[in-house]
Amino acid sequence: MNESKITALKNLYEHTLFDDVIPFWMKHSPDRKHGGYFTMLNNDGSVYSTDKSMWPQAREVWFFSTLCDTVEKRAEWLDMAKLGWDFIMKHAFHESGRAYFSFKRDGTPLTMPRQIFSETFIIIAAVRYHRVTGDPEAARIARDLYRKVVQWAETPIAGSQKAIHGSRAMIGHAIPMILLNVTREMTLLDGESDEFNEVTERCLAKIFDYHIHTDRKLLFEQVAPDGSLMLDIPEGRLVLPGHAIESAWFLMQEGVARKDLSIIDRACDLTLWMLDFGWDEEYGGLYYFLDSEGKPPLPLEWDMKLWWCHNEALFALLLAHKLKGDPIFEEWYDRVHEYSFTHHPDPEYGEWFGYLHRDGSVSHRFKGSNWKCCFHLPRQLLYSWQLLKEM
Amino acid sequence: MNESKITALKNLYEHTLFDDVIPFWMKHSPDRKHGGYFTMLNNDGSVYSTDKSMWPQAREVWFFSTLCDTVEKRAEWLDMAKLGWDFIMKHAFHESGRAYFSFKRDGTPLTMPRQIFSETFIIIAAVRYHRVTGDPEAARIARDLYRKVVQWAETPIAGSQKAIHGSRAMIGHAIPMILLNVTREMTLLDGESDEFNEVTERCLAKIFDYHIHTDRKLLFEQVAPDGSLMLDIPEGRLVLPGHAIESAWFLMQEGVARKDLSIIDRACDLTLWMLDFGWDEEYGGLYYFLDSEGKPPLPLEWDMKLWWCHNEALFALLLAHKLKGDPIFEEWYDRVHEYSFTHHPDPEYGEWFGYLHRDGSVSHRFKGSNWKCCFHLPRQLLYSWQLLKEM
Repeated sequence: MNESKITALKNLYEHTLFDDVIPFWMKHSPDRKHGGYFTMLNNDGSVYSTDKSMWPQAREVWFFSTLCDTVEKRAEWLDMAKLGWDFIMKHAFHESGRAYFSFKRDGTPLTMPRQIFSETFIIIAAVRYHRVTGDPEAARIARDLYRKVVQWAETPIAGSQKAIHGSRAMIGHAIPMILLNVTREMTLLDGESDEFNEVTERCLAKIFDYHIHTDRKLLFEQVAPDGSLMLDIPEGRLVLPGHAIESAWFLMQEGVARKDLSIIDRACDLTLWMLDFGWDEEYGGLYYFLDSEGKPPLPLEWDMKLWWCHNEALFALLLAHKLKGDPIFEEWYDRVHEYSFTHHPDPEYGEWFGYLHRDGSVSHRFKGSNWKCCFHLPRQLLYSWQLLKEM
Repeated sequence: MNESKITALKNLYEHTLFDDVIPFWMKHSPDRKHGGYFTMLNNDGSVYSTDKSMWPQAREVWFFSTLCDTVEKRAEWLDMAKLGWDFIMKHAFHESGRAYFSFKRDGTPLTMPRQIFSETFIIIAAVRYHRVTGDPEAARIARDLYRKVVQWAETPIAGSQKAIHGSRAMIGHAIPMILLNVTREMTLLDGESDEFNEVTERCLAKIFDYHIHTDRKLLFEQVAPDGSLMLDIPEGRLVLPGHAIESAWFLMQEGVARKDLSIIDRACDLTLWMLDFGWDEEYGGLYYFLDSEGKPPLPLEWDMKLWWCHNEALFALLLAHKLKGDPIFEEWYDRVHEYSFTHHPDPEYGEWFGYLHRDGSVSHRFKGSNWKCCFHLPRQLLYSWQLLKEM
């Protein structure tokens, strides 16, 4: 990447992050009455539901704390982080120690989660919030929840599924993927340790030996407990290009931290494989779901184009380009960049449209939901901007 | 509707049903090794997963039994019904009396259901199977399950949801809607009775007084337990035009059986309201999900066009036209017919494509899945053909 291109990209990211995306969430998401954030925001930022969901609450705390941690401790950002953290402290936890999945505006719990992700996002929020505030309770919660989540990840939570025990065992890629990222964040709290190293090595083994199948040049989301493929069922053929690419940059980050070139190389290969497999040659963009054998993908939204898949691909490619220098990463970066910046931004009210039809037309005009929140887009803008400054 | 149009439609339905749709399922769905049906069928009928799901198994038994019951007791149709019924008898039930939700090919159970619909489809299958075979066990199962389902409908099944008890009570339209239809089928087994009448009256009251809001000219899928609207949350604003129209013809059928013109009139109005609200004026077809207040519908598939919504609308309009004679029903019928028959049929391998993008292009080329099976399309073709013969 030549210098003028780096400068132009850096400026674009800086402008989009600080003048568009952050102001959008700072203006529209704070709930000054009950605390926490509104995330169900229409295209113009107006609130279409005041219900609150755990993932977006924790993720926005993480984002504003990370801004304070890595850019500057600006009072307005700290205030944003505190608004969400206080809501979590007041309302997040069930007496069992588990976090709820969703709430009414005032914090009254509505539903329990079926998986461990509510808790994993609270952990990373707590780590970053502690770093910028020194709050000892945040550190305690991060450590306590981390140990629980590592356990829960090994033993499915009772009652969390309707599957008949033992009739078809499968393991999912999302668990080692998220634990890898959470453990890396935990080292920001407690430094490297045998405990973290052991969890990380287990995650790396699961991802590389069980989910990534090099002979197929694919990452399979669900495999048998021994890592073998389950190609006779749709779940076993399920490929999520954007999800695998997010995992790839978690792996690159881990490779950098461990100074392990082999991890970096394999993660860069994975990125390219998933782009080759997942890119829509006709309309551009990454498919959301694909079937590894070309059989019908079952999710109704399989061919939609989602913002976060493109954000994850942009950062993975920029990082791979910086780490490896191979022009193929720049070529792919340019392609994904061109697609993303011509299709996702809303020229009228700012921020990005998250959901496009296969042909690139906008299918949902909202800016936030229980899933789209202050996370993938600003995280990618921040990380990419920081990376470009180093280049 | 003039006579030549009636004849042309009758011929089209007869041909599509008997020369296209029934042969497709008879050829591709029987599992002669383990019993039951394959329903995960690619566009050419090839099997892309051998897993079996309760809804499609029970619905296909219902359909082939109903063919025998109302057209003629043809040996090959009876054989099809028996294949699925024997699978249900052998594998469907958990020791608790509940039916499983899904199975491996050989009948090994995979998952439990979260709701009561697995059982409701077994009931209607059992009723029709008993009528054409006289099998006393089918009658016993229908009666036993019916009583259980009526109870379960009143008291949510423990552990079936992750909702926190009491924090936000809601009632769903799908329950009284399906019970209305199931109870009508039960009268084919045991005739009219006080028991059935009482259930039906409860269902009618729920649908008319709680879910249909005449001031809004809409049917709301989820309302508060007292029938009041919950417009501050997306679930409370959820409108499913095709589902409400299916409910409308269940109501018309009930009105005919009870000789109650007021039920018929209100059901016909409902059909028109939902078409007015749910029709896509730009591309044609019924939207899958809409928000009653024009706020963002959250399901990613909200603007897709689904075959079953059009099948239900076609039959509702034909029945309304026959019952009321108002030309508005014929006009709407023509519009839905034109859309359906130009967009859904597969000219290459027969049967219908089930899932279209908003613009009418095909998004999923399979003919069957865990949801699309031998039910909505053949039921509508059969019922419409029978209705046209009477006209």
